[in-house]
Amino acid sequence: MRDAYQDQLDNLADGLAGMCDQVAEAMEKATRSLLEADLQLAEEVITSDVRIDDLRATAEEKAFALLALQAPVATDLRTVVSAIHGAGDIERMGDLALHVAQAARRRHPQPVLPPEVGPYFAEMGRVGVALAIKAGEVIRSRDLERAAELEADDDAMDDLHRHMFTVLMDREWSHGVGPAVDITLLARFYERYADHAVAVARRIVYVVTGRMPGPLTV
Amino acid sequence: MRDAYQDQLDNLADGLAGMCDQVAEAMEKATRSLLEADLQLAEEVITSDVRIDDLRATAEEKAFALLALQAPVATDLRTVVSAIHGAGDIERMGDLALHVAQAARRRHPQPVLPPEVGPYFAEMGRVGVALAIKAGEVIRSRDLERAAELEADDDAMDDLHRHMFTVLMDREWSHGVGPAVDITLLARFYERYADHAVAVARRIVYVVTGRMPGPLTV
Repeated sequence: MRDAYQDQLDNLADGLAGMCDQVAEAMEKATRSLLEADLQLAEEVITSDVRIDDLRATAEEKAFALLALQAPVATDLRTVVSAIHGAGDIERMGDLALHVAQAARRRHPQPVLPPEVGPYFAEMGRVGVALAIKAGEVIRSRDLERAAELEADDDAMDDLHRHMFTVLMDREWSHGVGPAVDITLLARFYERYADHAVAVARRIVYVVTGRMPGPLTV
Repeated sequence: MRDAYQDQLDNLADGLAGMCDQVAEAMEKATRSLLEADLQLAEEVITSDVRIDDLRATAEEKAFALLALQAPVATDLRTVVSAIHGAGDIERMGDLALHVAQAARRRHPQPVLPPEVGPYFAEMGRVGVALAIKAGEVIRSRDLERAAELEADDDAMDDLHRHMFTVLMDREWSHGVGPAVDITLLARFYERYADHAVAVARRIVYVVTGRMPGPLTV
């Protein structure tokens, strides 16, 4: 028979995985609001960020209660501490999706992005959303191979991020400083979003193996 | 007589406060390397970041050992969990100082900043360093009034951050897209550095009062 303690640990992991799905949805909508100058979608993301903040607070409370009442050790302790870290990372991913939506709202009804950079952001959005979903899967499955995949996915994001700077610095760039500043920040938001997803997966590797994979280069 | 457990808790706090001093020094040097195009200073910051990463790992290990062996509750548990968060925030501050130094190195021997924006970055550096030092003091003293001061100091950083965008968007801006992209990212690094210092102070408020102050707006 499973005991209440194990159920609490599972419940904590389920909560975190659910948060991943929510920040994936937030980034998917935020990216569409950016690409399509869709104010309503942007507002949806902005309004629902508080829900992600609440989920983080709930996850921390659950982790705290587990530490106080169950005094877990070894793998279970790593699970709880990693959940505290993970909740912070995933909430931050929600904040970054929020920032993307806020940029779309700030410039509305003007589009933030010149047409030629749209496809890059569509791709950064796709990669970011896939990373968030995969991080949730890794929390649920503790599948180390899947966790390792996030590193390669993140490399794709880093390439896109670097490429955006090449585009901005090109002599052909004709949109001036304003859009360049927006794009610089937006590209950074996507890149950081991906970094946090990788951090979540690395914490799961740590839970399972007792060792942290190498540091994240940012 | 003080017991070993209390000594361990104090030792954890001392370690974190020491990390604050180190990231303050890193940002002080990084800012000088930026303003003076001083490659050697930049290299110093870049080389010593690994030491801050190690301190974070040490702090986490200590916190983990306390949780596993002492099973703290109530205020002590909040202290340990907040130390885990704090170590992450302070390490991130070190990364952001590193990013500033990397920008100085990347453009060397050219200066990154046009002369007229230098004073703003000198001021962002000053405010950031003061915030890091103050965060360390709050960890040592648990002084709630001092903790509250960080919020006002962070407002000053936010004002400077916003002002940089006004400068970049001004019709008078004559330095083109490249420096604008650098400045956008650099200003963001300082602003995030300050946010993490505030987060550290807020966790101390939580340790003492059992309540988190309001969320950070970023």
